Amino acid sequence: MTVKLGLVGTGTVGCGCIDILDAHKEDFARHYGVDLEWKRICSRRSVQAEARGLEDIFTTDWHEVVEDPEIDIVVELIGGTTTAREVVLAALNAGKNVVTANKALMASFGEEVMNAAAENNCEIAFEGSVGGGIPIIDPMKHSLISNEISSVMGIVNGTTNYMLTRMVDAGLSYEEALAEAQAKGYAEAEPSADVDGLDAAAKIAILASIAFNSRVTLADVHAEGIRNITTTDLDAAHDMGYCVKLLAIAKRTSEGVSVRVHPTMLPLTHQLATVNSVYNAIYVTGDAVGETMFFGEGAGAKPAASAVMGDVLEVGRHVAQGVKPLVGCTCTDKLPIVPMDDLETKYYLRFTVADQPGVLAATASIFAKHKVSVYSVVQRGKKDAGTVDLVYVTHTAREKNVRAACADIVALEGVVFAEPSIIRVED
Amino acid sequence: MTVKLGLVGTGTVGCGCIDILDAHKEDFARHYGVDLEWKRICSRRSVQAEARGLEDIFTTDWHEVVEDPEIDIVVELIGGTTTAREVVLAALNAGKNVVTANKALMASFGEEVMNAAAENNCEIAFEGSVGGGIPIIDPMKHSLISNEISSVMGIVNGTTNYMLTRMVDAGLSYEEALAEAQAKGYAEAEPSADVDGLDAAAKIAILASIAFNSRVTLADVHAEGIRNITTTDLDAAHDMGYCVKLLAIAKRTSEGVSVRVHPTMLPLTHQLATVNSVYNAIYVTGDAVGETMFFGEGAGAKPAASAVMGDVLEVGRHVAQGVKPLVGCTCTDKLPIVPMDDLETKYYLRFTVADQPGVLAATASIFAKHKVSVYSVVQRGKKDAGTVDLVYVTHTAREKNVRAACADIVALEGVVFAEPSIIRVED
Repeated sequence: MTVKLGLVGTGTVGCGCIDILDAHKEDFARHYGVDLEWKRICSRRSVQAEARGLEDIFTTDWHEVVEDPEIDIVVELIGGTTTAREVVLAALNAGKNVVTANKALMASFGEEVMNAAAENNCEIAFEGSVGGGIPIIDPMKHSLISNEISSVMGIVNGTTNYMLTRMVDAGLSYEEALAEAQAKGYAEAEPSADVDGLDAAAKIAILASIAFNSRVTLADVHAEGIRNITTTDLDAAHDMGYCVKLLAIAKRTSEGVSVRVHPTMLPLTHQLATVNSVYNAIYVTGDAVGETMFFGEGAGAKPAASAVMGDVLEVGRHVAQGVKPLVGCTCTDKLPIVPMDDLETKYYLRFTVADQPGVLAATASIFAKHKVSVYSVVQRGKKDAGTVDLVYVTHTAREKNVRAACADIVALEGVVFAEPSIIRVED
Repeated sequence: MTVKLGLVGTGTVGCGCIDILDAHKEDFARHYGVDLEWKRICSRRSVQAEARGLEDIFTTDWHEVVEDPEIDIVVELIGGTTTAREVVLAALNAGKNVVTANKALMASFGEEVMNAAAENNCEIAFEGSVGGGIPIIDPMKHSLISNEISSVMGIVNGTTNYMLTRMVDAGLSYEEALAEAQAKGYAEAEPSADVDGLDAAAKIAILASIAFNSRVTLADVHAEGIRNITTTDLDAAHDMGYCVKLLAIAKRTSEGVSVRVHPTMLPLTHQLATVNSVYNAIYVTGDAVGETMFFGEGAGAKPAASAVMGDVLEVGRHVAQGVKPLVGCTCTDKLPIVPMDDLETKYYLRFTVADQPGVLAATASIFAKHKVSVYSVVQRGKKDAGTVDLVYVTHTAREKNVRAACADIVALEGVVFAEPSIIRVED
């Protein structure tokens, strides 16, 4: 049976999907009994469709895709939450199955989209929205469901992982690493979505919702990026046996779900510490499976298209066999989001302070006052103007207490000469 | 709807499955709409069933499980290819779905089992047969199917990976590492299945069949183990920037499928080189996804039970929704198995030779005669009795040529003082 596809968006991932089907149409039919065919292609510009000989089915009006009665699956690859949301909802309401790689849509409007799919008895698949080509949503929705998942930690933004890798390996500053990433096409001219952790925040919202069977949206995620990371901190981390990664973290705690994105110190022996350059990896811990990790290329046209076309084939199998959606929304629980103030973790704190007697005692007493227990404190390399770096590492402490202690230390008269560097530590 | 289960085998994995359902029965019903219930438990001894309060449904006769008309899914966890094969085929022929973790059965009788499942319109699921709790069969049967897979390389035996890790980290000999693994319960008293690569061979046969859509059986796999690995070779590898892993390798070549298990030198920068101790990982390369890796605990009751119960839940979903098998055997192609003689790869070759003039020239000319191009040759540490190690690394060469060259070198009179050490190299 021929399964007919509509494509909305012919950017790099959309073109990657067209290329995959060009290369493997016969293989898919032979191996999986699914004969896929593009019925309608929509984009603002026709140049990519024309280059692939698909001008006859090209349109600039997405309504022609979602309203085509022959189309079984609509593939949405325009991104964003405005037109994309309209396209996805209209397709589902027209009884079409939908495959998307749209992280922003699923992270902010996941419940609305899942509900529309359920009401219309259609499938919505979104493996490509997290981790590029890495299979992670399917394993979490199928293979790992016998587990209670306790945590999901991911390097899910290739741009920032590339930059941090280059800052360590080549000693580049943040600005130099960003310029290099931009020159290589890994970072946008306006890099905020990557370097401020917003891209990663959307992805961890999606993963947390699946892992904990409880809806987490982008707005629930505390996001900090890597703009303030310096080579000084990377060097200090290395000397302590740690690396610094921009981690997206979702943890099940006794108080609910803690979900956040921030630079994190990880022991160099941790499996995630071996994931460098543009690679992504997601580390999942469950009560039965223990620790698992899913590694691969987190970005790029071909890996993302691999995930999208995997979803298309899977939904296509169901269409060909007349099977209605097997797995809908699994957010059956309502776990509270743990406020960031209540986070309990370890902290690395670096203060650039006056190189004078009494500073150590003054800072240490402030930590004691705020019930932040100190694991170690080290003075690092003297600076030019009579300053020195004081590097504290705490035992597990509450975020609000650490913040309060830092504020008090910064307020000490004539002691602190720069914004403190605060990096959370995972052991 | 209640989905009724029969369990055959109450060893560590079977008990792990019982424990998972005990812990999460309500969660599964709430999250996935699948209410699972043990209907019949079979084993040779009743002690485990009794310890879990299941003596009322216990039997020593597996026929009572497969013939119970109420049972929807039979879970086979006795292993081996004699009784287990009977149980699985009888269950399928009685119209039951089957979940198994039996690598030997699937690697040697996979076609028979898949055919029986298809004829009876039943499901057969076997995620637990490879890589313990690591999701790998499901991702390869679903998420990655838009790819042409070019290679699958796995560290799929935790026992040997533990031993090799200890030989490197603690300088243990093979014998010491084996004794330690046995003392820790990682290795059997009769360790052949692990150390001779047979366990890994069964697993790569299963993965290759799925990856290449072409049946590969245990008998097709060339297996070499780690009995001959010495710390001398591990040290030499490290000095060259490599580690040695027991890899299970399946590659698509222009001549067919190359499938084998043997100690392999991997660059220390390769992601698989970071997988140590009892951990497993499977590295999959596809034409769209690029390089991906799946990492986790490859053995142990809980990880394996995680995989088995994941399959049970997935099949249970289908039973509850009245959905018949969606994916059967996908071995639609018939690719030839490339004979080991025709393997083309790089080789590390260590000869313990007489420390005398002319040996280098004599050995080098033999390589030239057999058209084996040498990349490097290094003389390592003098031995006691006037011998020295000559370490060759070749460019890509044919296995039969390398074997012939080695035979000629060994036959040189009074030159070679021990069996040469031959380790294939992946770059």
